[in-house]
Amino acid sequence: MHALMGIESDLGDWRRTHHTSQLSSSDDEVTLMGYIASIRDHGNIIFIMLADKDGEVQLVFKKHDGNERIFSLAKSLREHSSIAVKGRVKASKQAPMGIEVVPEELKVLSLAYSIPPFSVYSRTFPSIDVRLDLRAIDLRRYYMKSIFRLRHKVLKAIRGFLDTQGFMEVNTPKIISTASEGGASLFPVFYFDREAFLAQSPQLYKEQLVTAFEKVYEIAPIFRAEPSRTNRHLAEAISVDVEEAFVDYRDVMNLLESLVIHVIESLNSGAKEELQALKLSINTDRGFPRYTYTQIVDILRSNGYKIEWGDDFTNEHLQFLGDTIKGYYFIVDWPLRLRPFYTKNKDNDTSIAEAFDLMHGDLEISSGSTRINRKDILLERLKMQGLRTESFEYHLKVFDYGMPPHAGFGLGLERFLMAITGLDNIRDATFYPRDIDRLVP
Amino acid sequence: MHALMGIESDLGDWRRTHHTSQLSSSDDEVTLMGYIASIRDHGNIIFIMLADKDGEVQLVFKKHDGNERIFSLAKSLREHSSIAVKGRVKASKQAPMGIEVVPEELKVLSLAYSIPPFSVYSRTFPSIDVRLDLRAIDLRRYYMKSIFRLRHKVLKAIRGFLDTQGFMEVNTPKIISTASEGGASLFPVFYFDREAFLAQSPQLYKEQLVTAFEKVYEIAPIFRAEPSRTNRHLAEAISVDVEEAFVDYRDVMNLLESLVIHVIESLNSGAKEELQALKLSINTDRGFPRYTYTQIVDILRSNGYKIEWGDDFTNEHLQFLGDTIKGYYFIVDWPLRLRPFYTKNKDNDTSIAEAFDLMHGDLEISSGSTRINRKDILLERLKMQGLRTESFEYHLKVFDYGMPPHAGFGLGLERFLMAITGLDNIRDATFYPRDIDRLVP
Repeated sequence: MHALMGIESDLGDWRRTHHTSQLSSSDDEVTLMGYIASIRDHGNIIFIMLADKDGEVQLVFKKHDGNERIFSLAKSLREHSSIAVKGRVKASKQAPMGIEVVPEELKVLSLAYSIPPFSVYSRTFPSIDVRLDLRAIDLRRYYMKSIFRLRHKVLKAIRGFLDTQGFMEVNTPKIISTASEGGASLFPVFYFDREAFLAQSPQLYKEQLVTAFEKVYEIAPIFRAEPSRTNRHLAEAISVDVEEAFVDYRDVMNLLESLVIHVIESLNSGAKEELQALKLSINTDRGFPRYTYTQIVDILRSNGYKIEWGDDFTNEHLQFLGDTIKGYYFIVDWPLRLRPFYTKNKDNDTSIAEAFDLMHGDLEISSGSTRINRKDILLERLKMQGLRTESFEYHLKVFDYGMPPHAGFGLGLERFLMAITGLDNIRDATFYPRDIDRLVP
Repeated sequence: MHALMGIESDLGDWRRTHHTSQLSSSDDEVTLMGYIASIRDHGNIIFIMLADKDGEVQLVFKKHDGNERIFSLAKSLREHSSIAVKGRVKASKQAPMGIEVVPEELKVLSLAYSIPPFSVYSRTFPSIDVRLDLRAIDLRRYYMKSIFRLRHKVLKAIRGFLDTQGFMEVNTPKIISTASEGGASLFPVFYFDREAFLAQSPQLYKEQLVTAFEKVYEIAPIFRAEPSRTNRHLAEAISVDVEEAFVDYRDVMNLLESLVIHVIESLNSGAKEELQALKLSINTDRGFPRYTYTQIVDILRSNGYKIEWGDDFTNEHLQFLGDTIKGYYFIVDWPLRLRPFYTKNKDNDTSIAEAFDLMHGDLEISSGSTRINRKDILLERLKMQGLRTESFEYHLKVFDYGMPPHAGFGLGLERFLMAITGLDNIRDATFYPRDIDRLVP
């Protein structure tokens, strides 16, 4: 047992009266709670920065204030301990926020028994693995806190936009019997007495759901057993999936562009504090450039890159594109054989897909297309891609009942957050990343 | 190939100008799209009800209108086919909505090759298994459509409420290395070269996340390998998980009650149409009754039921309670040994947990508690429940850094929807249910 353990108290009937962000010098008696961001001990006076959900305030403990017990309790504390204080707010020119709080009562709710290998103020820090091993505490760093507060506002803006556009939120099963995009990259699940898989996308379900609801979206985890160790792949990620009936890929490209613009405008008006904390200035013009796949191939060739029409782009290609084309842009009209079986070809060309990627620099953040809505064509494409049509029986059945024309896209939330924040490792765009090497915490 | 297949057209450049719900007799030329809800063929005149996302309108095709091609095309159609029409809106006293549309052009976008074993208008229907096998089409029934439009509004109201209360949305991993509530009921996953599991709750992660963010919520799938075949269990469900620092179970009970009230008020003001379609009138008073576990045991005993203090309630007990206590009520202060290891006991009593269930009639819709925030106590409880402490190493580590007092709850979205709508089978409160017998569609 730690020597200090006896000084911890329960919360009891204490309740916070203010968050630190709500304090002003006109407040008198306040009850604050949070964790200790820093301590400066000057012998007879101790300054403690108390941090909570969305701010911090300086607490001042003086030895000769007539409250020796509190002073010596404060003296024994370490950074990260959770405390509660009752005290008085005082204006103070020296204090970082223009006010400070002089505690009259102090409860130590939970001691820190160790000091983590990073400060809450640091933007530079040890390796990501050291931080991820102690992720909950790493998230107390103001930089990471701002990233995830921003993430919350991105999600809220996405839902707000889709709601006003008449989309309905859906949830589709994550345990499935069949791969939606071929058999690769699936995690097997032992489902009662059967083999099942984790869904790598809600693709077939969201397509089915447009038959009744026309405009649907889902924001949910997707699972990909890709054994890659890059800074832009996760084994478990959050996908913003959108599907709409009676439109084609041009319509959903416009929708996606409006969505991105709406999110950026919402952050500029409603996340000023986070953007400032992250030293970000984000602005994007409407009218994202649209290049056809063929144009991109020509650009690459004329810059000395070797690529055949029909090849997928390599990392080297993408890097060159990212250096050449700044910001958001679409690559459209892909070779059909590079896209999944449910992708519709252009009316006048069976080798070209009505498909697009939304890029930000060298990063693909979204993929979408017009989908096939005829059973005979879908069957043909399944066979062409060497997939077992029997596995898709339950999906194909829906196409017997008037499946409307439809189109949609999937937007990778973490990648979108990378595009917005400039994070260079996707692991920091999620709370607890999963990859081939990491299953804990 | 079906004889009619040749009559199908692509969407091309046609785009909808109005949803049926937006039509008024002042509209002139309109383009509508949707599926055929019903057809009445009177020989020289055909009435087709065209259904879309949120309404329907009558189309009138007359043989002697000078457009024989359209008339004979209409004649060949079946219910559920997806069509697009360009036509003129006409006031009509006979038409169900007071208006009808006289098509001047007609595109058959997708034929129905079969007629499903239920009508879109039916509230009564074949067995749930017949419907689930054809779920996408079952969801075209107006009853089911209203259920899921209501579900969308429930989710929106929940998020709106939690946002205004200062909660931050989080996502926690669904592939985990350790059971959060003991080892039972887990689906194993083959994770690269390791064994992993699907998360049966975000419990430990949401607890960790209050160290940095204080107030967090997650709305996401949970997975339980319970081999039960009841009408109130799913193998995959959506859980609304809420966790808050610096409060106890009394606070989160109040929060949960306010959340339920807010959702019901939001539906009454913003989902009138759906409530009417479902013939629902939902009203709930503030101040949900709170019974202690011990009081409930006494009630049961005085009504002739056999139960020992410390036993969990059986289905028979819950049924009696549901018949006796109407609406929402809490059962609080449970025997500690009936609750998971992370549950805090009451200060003055080591046998009683600071824990609650929110009930609606005989249905448990939420569980919550004050959590343990001290490492030594948590270790003791893990051992008491026979769990391997090494498996929780990554979680216990967080408790070395000033884990604040905290409390929270999980609310089952599908069960909440059952409470609101009166659905008696949880499978109809989700799009594609998963249970021991069902993995498709």
